[in-house]
Amino acid sequence: MKKIFIEDLQKMAGRVTEITGWVHKIQRLKTAGFFQLRDATGLVQVVCEPEVAESLRLETPVRVIGEVIGTERQDAGVEIHLHEVVALSEVAYDLLPFSINGRKVDAGLEKQLDVRTMSLRRPRTRDVFRIEQEIVTAFRDFLIELRFSEIHTPKIIDAATEGGSEVFTVDYFGKRAFLAQSPQFYKQMMVGAGFERVFEVGHAYRAELHATQRHLNEYVSLDVEMGFLQDEKDLMDLEESLLFAIFDRLEKTCQTQLKRLEAVVPKRLSFPRITMTEAKARLEAEGIRTGVTLNGAQEKRLGEILEEETGSPFYFLTEYPLAKRPVYTYPGEVDGTSRSFDLIFRGMEITTGGQRIHEYQELFDGMVAAKMDPESFEFYLDGFRYGMPPHGGFAIGLERLAMQLLQLDNIREATLLPRDLHRLTP
Amino acid sequence: MKKIFIEDLQKMAGRVTEITGWVHKIQRLKTAGFFQLRDATGLVQVVCEPEVAESLRLETPVRVIGEVIGTERQDAGVEIHLHEVVALSEVAYDLLPFSINGRKVDAGLEKQLDVRTMSLRRPRTRDVFRIEQEIVTAFRDFLIELRFSEIHTPKIIDAATEGGSEVFTVDYFGKRAFLAQSPQFYKQMMVGAGFERVFEVGHAYRAELHATQRHLNEYVSLDVEMGFLQDEKDLMDLEESLLFAIFDRLEKTCQTQLKRLEAVVPKRLSFPRITMTEAKARLEAEGIRTGVTLNGAQEKRLGEILEEETGSPFYFLTEYPLAKRPVYTYPGEVDGTSRSFDLIFRGMEITTGGQRIHEYQELFDGMVAAKMDPESFEFYLDGFRYGMPPHGGFAIGLERLAMQLLQLDNIREATLLPRDLHRLTP
Repeated sequence: MKKIFIEDLQKMAGRVTEITGWVHKIQRLKTAGFFQLRDATGLVQVVCEPEVAESLRLETPVRVIGEVIGTERQDAGVEIHLHEVVALSEVAYDLLPFSINGRKVDAGLEKQLDVRTMSLRRPRTRDVFRIEQEIVTAFRDFLIELRFSEIHTPKIIDAATEGGSEVFTVDYFGKRAFLAQSPQFYKQMMVGAGFERVFEVGHAYRAELHATQRHLNEYVSLDVEMGFLQDEKDLMDLEESLLFAIFDRLEKTCQTQLKRLEAVVPKRLSFPRITMTEAKARLEAEGIRTGVTLNGAQEKRLGEILEEETGSPFYFLTEYPLAKRPVYTYPGEVDGTSRSFDLIFRGMEITTGGQRIHEYQELFDGMVAAKMDPESFEFYLDGFRYGMPPHGGFAIGLERLAMQLLQLDNIREATLLPRDLHRLTP
Repeated sequence: MKKIFIEDLQKMAGRVTEITGWVHKIQRLKTAGFFQLRDATGLVQVVCEPEVAESLRLETPVRVIGEVIGTERQDAGVEIHLHEVVALSEVAYDLLPFSINGRKVDAGLEKQLDVRTMSLRRPRTRDVFRIEQEIVTAFRDFLIELRFSEIHTPKIIDAATEGGSEVFTVDYFGKRAFLAQSPQFYKQMMVGAGFERVFEVGHAYRAELHATQRHLNEYVSLDVEMGFLQDEKDLMDLEESLLFAIFDRLEKTCQTQLKRLEAVVPKRLSFPRITMTEAKARLEAEGIRTGVTLNGAQEKRLGEILEEETGSPFYFLTEYPLAKRPVYTYPGEVDGTSRSFDLIFRGMEITTGGQRIHEYQELFDGMVAAKMDPESFEFYLDGFRYGMPPHGGFAIGLERLAMQLLQLDNIREATLLPRDLHRLTP
């Protein structure tokens, strides 16, 4: 279990040590040889005989024994003077599918996704997932500190939650079941079941026929639900603090990765909050005609206006039209509005959230009006029948947040092994 | 977001405070009234006028304002002298489905699972999930400290991994896909893709037709995979230290829950390791006839023998017969054995693990011999072709670990919302 990682080598200067990794790059000169060794944490140059460099093949897993020499010529601050190198297994390729050790990868995204075990070897490609890991860790730590409970809810479900059409169906012992589009009903139920405050880090499934740069059919949803709140402002306060905590952690733990990805963590400026009515008025004033809600381009334009005014790349779009929200949405004070919001980050929606109806009868009547059969949702309504406090929550798509934070062109770059309309492997 | 929780009330003695929760129990005497208030963290007695007690209904979510009075009569160390109580929503039941505020629940497990939003309100029932949360947190913290990366791998997959029959099928845009039985292939691939050490906390799906007290069709798998190891002993060392770290955390964070569940965390005694050959000999010496492997009763009996000798309720059953393991299993030194193991805890298998084959050709040939089509698994074999270090891992079923630790009769008690042969709701 104990292992010397490359990022720790500086402390080992002057000592002979053993490290393991992959042969990342090879250079053979007349009188000297060099190769770069790569492990999970970084790269280090190994100085060897020309014949040794000659004998190596790229991407071979090796064990290296050598002396760690401090040097300012190398980014790592050290290099290794080789005593011995042993191949830990044989590679079995004639030609690598593309090269990952140059300035650019000589393959498009689709090819890189096809051979994910190759493309992820590139440190910069893997950096995205280190960022995501730290986002998730900060998310959990922040919420656990506030006594949220982590839950794991079923993904095979009996009734489609949000809508009927965009769900994947599963054959469950001969019965037709579905993959959960979100843990919405379950997280609400768990608030009512006494946990009060819950979160889940889990997969969500959307059988959407989109093939855009920001849609996935299987994604990681960071779900939050909180009981005993006043109104949706509590949720916006919570989400803002949560995102600040995430940014703090990224700056503390991911400097190397952020630098390599040329990404800048947003400043901790309070997120402007603008009602849908105000938002439309702002855009109309610029001669932009809006509908009941804003489309993507309009959300983006509004973000530019607000960022210029406030400096924040985020804004909450509040008092969302009730008719555009699911049946459990809490109505707003102004007729036709709701206590729900979207959070827009650099022009893209990364969250939908809001307060939910907590009175049994109101929810029951709403379901009947929406032509949902309350009997099919008895498991959900039960929680309300037996006493449900005021509550609400939100969900953040992990890959979308990472994509916007790192300003990636395509959400698939923020997905280890994406699932989309055309992709089911690897 | 700020809220006073019941478990923090002792610090508030002498002050007037506001707390929220559910009405857990009501008692009306001639001259005084009492009710118990329950929140996510505990119970506290509220002293009120008899008329107030009279007016309340069980399980109503309420806001209570009152004076916190220190008292030794109450477990909580305090009670509340009521100033005001406000119902935050109306309950809508005629009769509760069962009572959760007595010594016992007057309903069987199936009924409790049917109305999960009710049964989980009982603190003791919810305790199990607090324990699970701490297990998962300790699991993550321990591995991240050792520079494991947390990954999220797809659950909708193209090829069944372990075996063909016990998988759920999904309609993926008209294509037949499967729900992953484990992240086995993906976690190996990610080791090879440069992460070196990975873990995942995610759902696994088994379409098993069993309806036993220890089977679930959807469960939470704690998966670990590590590159650059010597042999499977590294994995057993890792798992033992990991479990000790989990036990440490439970003792630090869950004293209340453990006490209420009458559960004792095992002592930190090294887990005995016994080869399958030795295991069979030990049982044969007692007149027990064994087959190629041990059955459940035999694993249990061996556990009793070893616990008596060593004091440990755990043992590793090593050198598992190669023929009984999947194609990627690394062969052992002794013919017919493998570098793989089970971990048995209080008579039940909670882990399968081992070293995996890392040479491309060996794995390829093994697949052909096992009549698996290597072309269907090219996405997996690629990782080996381009250089895979020696590696291995294991998986722990979260619910099974909790079940054995807490000595529960049925694994469903350790599952928030179980999925089994007969249950797809709630």
